[in-house]
Amino acid sequence: MRPASVTTRDQAAALDAADPLAPLRDLFELPPGVIYLDGNSLGALPRATAARVREVVEQEWGQGLIRSWNSVGWMTLASRIGDKIARLVGAAPGELVVTDSTSVNVFKVLSAALTMARVAAGPGADRRVIVSERSNFPTDLYIAESLARERGFELRLLDAPDLASALDARTAVLMLTHVNYRNGVMHDMAALSRAAHDAGALVIWDLAHSAGAVPVDLHRDGADFAVGCGYKYLNGGPGAPAFVWVHPKHVGRFQQPLSGWIGHAAPFEFTPGYRPAAGISRYLCGTPAVISMAALECGVDTLLAAQQHGGMAALRAKSLALSHLFAARVEALCPALTLASPRDDAGRGSQVCFSHATHAYAIMQALIARGVIGDFRAGDPAHPPDAADILRFGFTPLYLRFVDAWDAAGHVHQVLAAEEWRRPEFNRRHAVT
Amino acid sequence: MRPASVTTRDQAAALDAADPLAPLRDLFELPPGVIYLDGNSLGALPRATAARVREVVEQEWGQGLIRSWNSVGWMTLASRIGDKIARLVGAAPGELVVTDSTSVNVFKVLSAALTMARVAAGPGADRRVIVSERSNFPTDLYIAESLARERGFELRLLDAPDLASALDARTAVLMLTHVNYRNGVMHDMAALSRAAHDAGALVIWDLAHSAGAVPVDLHRDGADFAVGCGYKYLNGGPGAPAFVWVHPKHVGRFQQPLSGWIGHAAPFEFTPGYRPAAGISRYLCGTPAVISMAALECGVDTLLAAQQHGGMAALRAKSLALSHLFAARVEALCPALTLASPRDDAGRGSQVCFSHATHAYAIMQALIARGVIGDFRAGDPAHPPDAADILRFGFTPLYLRFVDAWDAAGHVHQVLAAEEWRRPEFNRRHAVT
Repeated sequence: MRPASVTTRDQAAALDAADPLAPLRDLFELPPGVIYLDGNSLGALPRATAARVREVVEQEWGQGLIRSWNSVGWMTLASRIGDKIARLVGAAPGELVVTDSTSVNVFKVLSAALTMARVAAGPGADRRVIVSERSNFPTDLYIAESLARERGFELRLLDAPDLASALDARTAVLMLTHVNYRNGVMHDMAALSRAAHDAGALVIWDLAHSAGAVPVDLHRDGADFAVGCGYKYLNGGPGAPAFVWVHPKHVGRFQQPLSGWIGHAAPFEFTPGYRPAAGISRYLCGTPAVISMAALECGVDTLLAAQQHGGMAALRAKSLALSHLFAARVEALCPALTLASPRDDAGRGSQVCFSHATHAYAIMQALIARGVIGDFRAGDPAHPPDAADILRFGFTPLYLRFVDAWDAAGHVHQVLAAEEWRRPEFNRRHAVT
Repeated sequence: MRPASVTTRDQAAALDAADPLAPLRDLFELPPGVIYLDGNSLGALPRATAARVREVVEQEWGQGLIRSWNSVGWMTLASRIGDKIARLVGAAPGELVVTDSTSVNVFKVLSAALTMARVAAGPGADRRVIVSERSNFPTDLYIAESLARERGFELRLLDAPDLASALDARTAVLMLTHVNYRNGVMHDMAALSRAAHDAGALVIWDLAHSAGAVPVDLHRDGADFAVGCGYKYLNGGPGAPAFVWVHPKHVGRFQQPLSGWIGHAAPFEFTPGYRPAAGISRYLCGTPAVISMAALECGVDTLLAAQQHGGMAALRAKSLALSHLFAARVEALCPALTLASPRDDAGRGSQVCFSHATHAYAIMQALIARGVIGDFRAGDPAHPPDAADILRFGFTPLYLRFVDAWDAAGHVHQVLAAEEWRRPEFNRRHAVT
């Protein structure tokens, strides 16, 4: 039975019964009556996290107090969790650390890349353009805008199809988010990295919607720098610390400007001059956020638990299967919705999006009221490719079942068929959408 | 009975019995058998924190999932907790936010201050010096070093007595930590701010060892910018988020370079161009660290609980009294130790330091083995004023009793009298000291 040709709930249940990844759902605490299709925004709570956070708060902090920096290894959390995430994104141990937010890490790697690009180009060279995608997640663009102004670079924003041909001898850095937060479009990391390198530019990949969602191989696919998010597919909790990776051939060559004491070669010597640590540790900055990092480690462990069942490749296959089932069913039942994410698997991350001509927001509110939690992203009237309002549905194979995808599609159908979205309470906008 | 003239444990106990702040100790979970004199490095665990963090993890995240951004106000934590901290440091509501680490916040405010200074000085002006203290906490100096290099400024490091006279028409910014992390020396904020302004410079105060420890009045004492730490006297937990304050007359004039999406005027419009939020919110950057912030709020609440007993002034008075009792007793009993923090109350923060000619590290380890937890800071042979190794003892009036100060001094005496510090296990260095 191929997921896209499932026509009964029993067939979906049969897929679950045959799914070797199905037991992983038990690693999570999920609220009863909820089908959670928003792991692309905030991952669900792993069952292990509550106890681990309690241990950190009540024992390590409460009883151990300052002694825990030594006795339970708080200072090594950044690299210990980093090494685990490295396994999910094709990086080697010692190359990746957990620290700060994605936005702050974008600042670090883009700063370093611009310095590298300028030094490599030499004085008088005209390599001063940062290329990115207009529909990149805004925080990446905001940070790039700020650095471009400060350093005398130009930020050039293009639509996805125009990126490769825009790379030329003026391009310093290509900076992209691998999977688009809005419509789920996934770039070809290898091809675009190669195109950037062929133009003599460096490439930065933001893995916010990739790490833990799709197989990523930073080394194989030619990345120079990468950052990513801890609270989406890594299930690290709201506002979890982010991560940063720099190719080992670059990492020792330049320092990044957020030269805080934890990135110093010997922080506890308390010497007045900055001496960057040898490897990726120079991308650390302030004191590690211990409680948040402990929660993140539990989240990352839920992904590593899939290693014995085929790891990221198996998770990706199941995510695609869930997506196929859902998308096929919605398309069959709901002619008012238009698929807004790519049909081609290779060009899509782990989410399926639909647009609705007029009432996407209220439709999502009605779905949430039914316990089907996805989210809404407003269209951008100033940018025709993104003009439509969108319903986003994330398919996280760790905790979703085929019957969930089946049932979710049924709820979408019912909301539309009964015009539930007309109710006034579904048409009041929240501050955070 | 003045604390410095206490000569029996019963007299110390009598001070506790008469202390209106004594019940605040019950707000904390303290390990049995421990006298905790390191709240200047990591504050103790408030009793309310464990339950609140459980609620955030298990209910708000686990059950509420993405809905909690709206339903329980995660997005307002930064300003809600900021408003509470503002009450402790002489700032008004809406002027202070909780975000990122102290190091990252130093980068933001120093960047903004350098931009302001350059614009104010005009083109061709020679106002390009950042003045700081050589024994400032290193992360502040490392960040300043990085920004000075990037922006073409000079970082000039002086000893405390030479600061005021070094301020001149070349000074752009005076950046200081109010209370020295090492020896507890407290600067005169009003006098140095005035001296900076008289020279036409801006002033940045790092309140890492002040907020929640000593009365601070940023407005009255002429600060332009301030940052501070959440995990020391604010009891926010290991690696708690830090805070940042900008004088309202400056805050709207410039943006800071870490222009992440949460500092945008309308983050959920997801527009590609950065438009900074109106007030201090433009100093926010990435997604707020919800779990860590919830813990920090519990810590800040322990300080606000003292408001009905006289607030920061009463806490300061008790901290001084504890310090006097301890210092007098140690000086009376331990001639091998030399007081290394100022004798004058007005020039000292909330910690008392002693140096020992040869074995400060091992003495501290022996004390920790006895349950008297202070910490050790190595001397800096390259800088004669800080050449001595130091034992640090922080006096946190929220959870320390006069009998604790008495007993701690007795333990110091016993470690020295019996030469307990000679044991090999006390002479092995930890990674983190």
